[in-house]
Amino acid sequence: MATTNGVAENGHASTVPLGRYLWERIHQIGVNHIFGVPGDFNLTLLDHIYDVDGLDWVGNTNELNAAYAADGYARVKNGAGCLVTTHGVGELSALNAIAGSMTEQVKVIHVVGQTSLKMQRNRMMIHHSIGFSPDHQMFNHAARAFRVAAAEIQKAEGAAEEIDRVLRECFVKSGPVYFFVPIDLVDVPVPSEALQTPLNLEPEADSQAVEYASKAIMDTISSIADAKQLVDKLAIPVYTSNMGKGIIDETHEHYVDIYNGGPSRPGIEKAFEQHDLILILGNLPSDTNSGGFTRHLPPNTIYVNSHHVEIKGWKTSSKVPLKAVIKKLNELASSAKIPKVENPKHKLSERPLEDDRDSKEVTQSYIWHRMAEWMQPHDVVFGETGTAAFGLPDATFPKDVNWITQTYYGSIGYATPAALGADLALSDLTKHRGDPRGRTLLVTGDGSMMLTVQEIGNMIKQKLQPIIFVINNAGYTIERVIHGARCSYNDIVPFNYTHMLQFFNMDESEANKCFHKATNKAELEEILAKDSVNNPKSVQVVEIMMDMLDVPWRLSTQIATRGPEAVKEMKEAGFKVRDPTSTSSYWN
Amino acid sequence: MATTNGVAENGHASTVPLGRYLWERIHQIGVNHIFGVPGDFNLTLLDHIYDVDGLDWVGNTNELNAAYAADGYARVKNGAGCLVTTHGVGELSALNAIAGSMTEQVKVIHVVGQTSLKMQRNRMMIHHSIGFSPDHQMFNHAARAFRVAAAEIQKAEGAAEEIDRVLRECFVKSGPVYFFVPIDLVDVPVPSEALQTPLNLEPEADSQAVEYASKAIMDTISSIADAKQLVDKLAIPVYTSNMGKGIIDETHEHYVDIYNGGPSRPGIEKAFEQHDLILILGNLPSDTNSGGFTRHLPPNTIYVNSHHVEIKGWKTSSKVPLKAVIKKLNELASSAKIPKVENPKHKLSERPLEDDRDSKEVTQSYIWHRMAEWMQPHDVVFGETGTAAFGLPDATFPKDVNWITQTYYGSIGYATPAALGADLALSDLTKHRGDPRGRTLLVTGDGSMMLTVQEIGNMIKQKLQPIIFVINNAGYTIERVIHGARCSYNDIVPFNYTHMLQFFNMDESEANKCFHKATNKAELEEILAKDSVNNPKSVQVVEIMMDMLDVPWRLSTQIATRGPEAVKEMKEAGFKVRDPTSTSSYWN
Repeated sequence: MATTNGVAENGHASTVPLGRYLWERIHQIGVNHIFGVPGDFNLTLLDHIYDVDGLDWVGNTNELNAAYAADGYARVKNGAGCLVTTHGVGELSALNAIAGSMTEQVKVIHVVGQTSLKMQRNRMMIHHSIGFSPDHQMFNHAARAFRVAAAEIQKAEGAAEEIDRVLRECFVKSGPVYFFVPIDLVDVPVPSEALQTPLNLEPEADSQAVEYASKAIMDTISSIADAKQLVDKLAIPVYTSNMGKGIIDETHEHYVDIYNGGPSRPGIEKAFEQHDLILILGNLPSDTNSGGFTRHLPPNTIYVNSHHVEIKGWKTSSKVPLKAVIKKLNELASSAKIPKVENPKHKLSERPLEDDRDSKEVTQSYIWHRMAEWMQPHDVVFGETGTAAFGLPDATFPKDVNWITQTYYGSIGYATPAALGADLALSDLTKHRGDPRGRTLLVTGDGSMMLTVQEIGNMIKQKLQPIIFVINNAGYTIERVIHGARCSYNDIVPFNYTHMLQFFNMDESEANKCFHKATNKAELEEILAKDSVNNPKSVQVVEIMMDMLDVPWRLSTQIATRGPEAVKEMKEAGFKVRDPTSTSSYWN
Repeated sequence: MATTNGVAENGHASTVPLGRYLWERIHQIGVNHIFGVPGDFNLTLLDHIYDVDGLDWVGNTNELNAAYAADGYARVKNGAGCLVTTHGVGELSALNAIAGSMTEQVKVIHVVGQTSLKMQRNRMMIHHSIGFSPDHQMFNHAARAFRVAAAEIQKAEGAAEEIDRVLRECFVKSGPVYFFVPIDLVDVPVPSEALQTPLNLEPEADSQAVEYASKAIMDTISSIADAKQLVDKLAIPVYTSNMGKGIIDETHEHYVDIYNGGPSRPGIEKAFEQHDLILILGNLPSDTNSGGFTRHLPPNTIYVNSHHVEIKGWKTSSKVPLKAVIKKLNELASSAKIPKVENPKHKLSERPLEDDRDSKEVTQSYIWHRMAEWMQPHDVVFGETGTAAFGLPDATFPKDVNWITQTYYGSIGYATPAALGADLALSDLTKHRGDPRGRTLLVTGDGSMMLTVQEIGNMIKQKLQPIIFVINNAGYTIERVIHGARCSYNDIVPFNYTHMLQFFNMDESEANKCFHKATNKAELEEILAKDSVNNPKSVQVVEIMMDMLDVPWRLSTQIATRGPEAVKEMKEAGFKVRDPTSTSSYWN
């Protein structure tokens, strides 16, 4: 079946089926795995995936999981991920994940196999439709706000160009795009010539504006790094946000810590706020990324955003892409006089000791630092929304760890299928680029895992090797700390993880070796020391028993930014809440 | 906490918190269980559920499952079902199920806990939102096409009236409604007086128009049956559609069969098309409910729709509700002269014998009739989209069986959570109305079950007792018969059902008793004879091994309506396809 670059076997044809064109292009831009769920309006479209050398179909257990998987794949590849769904039922099921990719700016390509043009035109009452004179595009329209571009293909003429335009938009605007492909257009021939020329995926840059903005930045700081290089050239302290954690090596001499307003590590808030000039690369001030809007930024703050720069109240055009500015700053930084600014980290006292440090149980104060010590370079670490997302930011990661969490969107259930996508991406990077095989560490909770747990079956089917840490703390602890600490609505449906791998079709003898349970620190230490866990050859599950009302200080401190009533409720329920003025303890 | 009818403990207060008002009203209209998933924007709203006597919170494993459960609950109660989700992430996850309730005309109440009015007004970057200046209503807007009404509550004034209006719309228009409740309005007092007066849920009827339309119908047929009563009064043959199966007792002397155009039982198409007058109660001519649009209806067809009547090209106003017409027809029928029409069933030859009738394996030709023989009155039977939905219509059900399938929407994964909702509804009907405790029979496949399987854990948590039949035929057989019979995209993630109940936290010893596996007919017969399966006290799972390429004749015949190419592809793949002209065999 295989051919090269979309040219048919006879070497003369100048057309390819539309479906084939689409998959060739998607493969060209770096996608090797297609996620999704089959349905009667996409089956013939799926046929063409098998025609593209190096492109593989990966079915998922449902559409929401497919879209989460595509998001995880895209993040690890630092490129695009792709899924296919069917008309109506499939596309709507994926929508929440797509919305997440939108707000988190992840490049996800959603291909929808639609009803035929005749069915659409005649508003035929085809299954999966709504009502007596159904508009077959109503599902498409419902998704409009959750994408950066869409190709609503209605004829073969111009379809190839439309495919190229929308794939470019996916990269330039960094967000989800849709392709709507009516079933009767899948096999219609379209010109294949364009496939010979790779797509240009770089944003349009006004080089003069980039230069002007970059000079203005250098003038302002008279002084100041691709972001990692820039940090080397500028001997100035570097902070990160919750969302940006891991982009800059945390063992770098200029790295300080996460600055998150009030809910920062003791001493960090004060140190940060003494700087008189801040350069922000990529600003995303959501509540969860700004300590509940408690960050203080000096008037001398320079914002280098995705497509424009803001500096001293002055704003450039939208043709000043972040990548181009960083490149230019790297050039300019060599010749500029950069003031020396000492790293305030060296003046800060050591990390305060936790009052529960002697506990034999696995505590929130212990686990995140311990897990970070256990990490290795090239690990991809998922911190699911919940205590993991608030706990892991407290730990210093080794170099080259890829930290992934939905800081802004925060949709529980995301991390499990996303970890499947990530681990497939890691195998891709090893196979196609010769990268060392990184590990996928999924750190999730019993509450979040419940929503999308069946995708673990797919990890086993795909012979992947993620290490899955499940915090079993009997419910939605992140909700308990917000409200209703002991209310039954914060209880969940309990699973017995001992049987999970077998249910998902792993051999009993293998499953017994791949499942590990820690009821205390000593048991967890034993598990972390196992070679089979450190160097997994198959899915590993580590269930960790923790207290229902134990939370990371970053979480309760974030909730405390809501005001004194929130603090009072937490304290009455028995949660520890930090005194923000204390520099010697996390808690008061 | 409990009070009566929304009047506060002191007996004098004339207000209740808005959240309390909402739940009191929802309880008043017949809802006893609230489905959903907690989230930080709905927690305080959930508190008020506990204040209403007889109203219970039922958390689900995810939002899609919650909405499916509410749909199943509504169908069995012949009333409304209700779920609660949180801003953005939760409401979008439920959307596909809501769209299904829309097209299947099921009364589902979706309550969304929203961000505060201040957050909305200031377009604050609160987690779960989209972009830098987020419109917090964009999720609400995305759902507009999938509901019959919505209360977008933005102030306490008028909120009670708005709640009443929208609940009424849910019943009058029979479809999903939304309540958007900003978190800061949950505890604001609203007048409680209206709670003393039950809501009027009946559609407005123009009594003169109803009478006129009913007389016109009686004049036309000079002759004709609440629908079941009407059948008794009219001694005329009664056919049903795929979707309508089970509404009329199939053992009734006037009942003939399902008429589904071409894909009908041999002889039925011809018999139906010899009638010169047809009365249709509730017309829904989707492809899947009309044999792929192959029904033939005479010019003398009378359509009694939900809100209007069509007769001889003449159409009434939209104030002629189906219920009112049936009531009037019952009155008129007593005095009218109704022509005697013989039931054509008696002239039809016996059901043709299947060519694989002697197989020792469980075959499609065997299982559906066998299952129907095994059913009991008051059973609720779910036929999941797949071979079950196409196979079970072939079997004659006992009296008072409630048949539930998504004939029009056809979203795989629906039936499992809907069966949870249904079984809770059955326990409701026994507790509150003294009905005999019906059984819930979930008949699903390995492909469909995969999408929403975690809700089985909730069935165990809720101590429910459905009997779950899983057709294990190694993939999406319904897709295989459409296209790609042996393509890997029609393979699924395999589960080992032997471990399912233990994974979902059932005791090992009990789980061993509740799981049953049939690899052939003899084993299935043994299982069906067990008292623990016939009279379940807890969740029962029956896994049935069947051939990957065996399909019910109704399914391949439905596909055959697409034309000769579809027939050719099925035959080449090895599927049996019926010769529609044959009256002696299902297959050619």
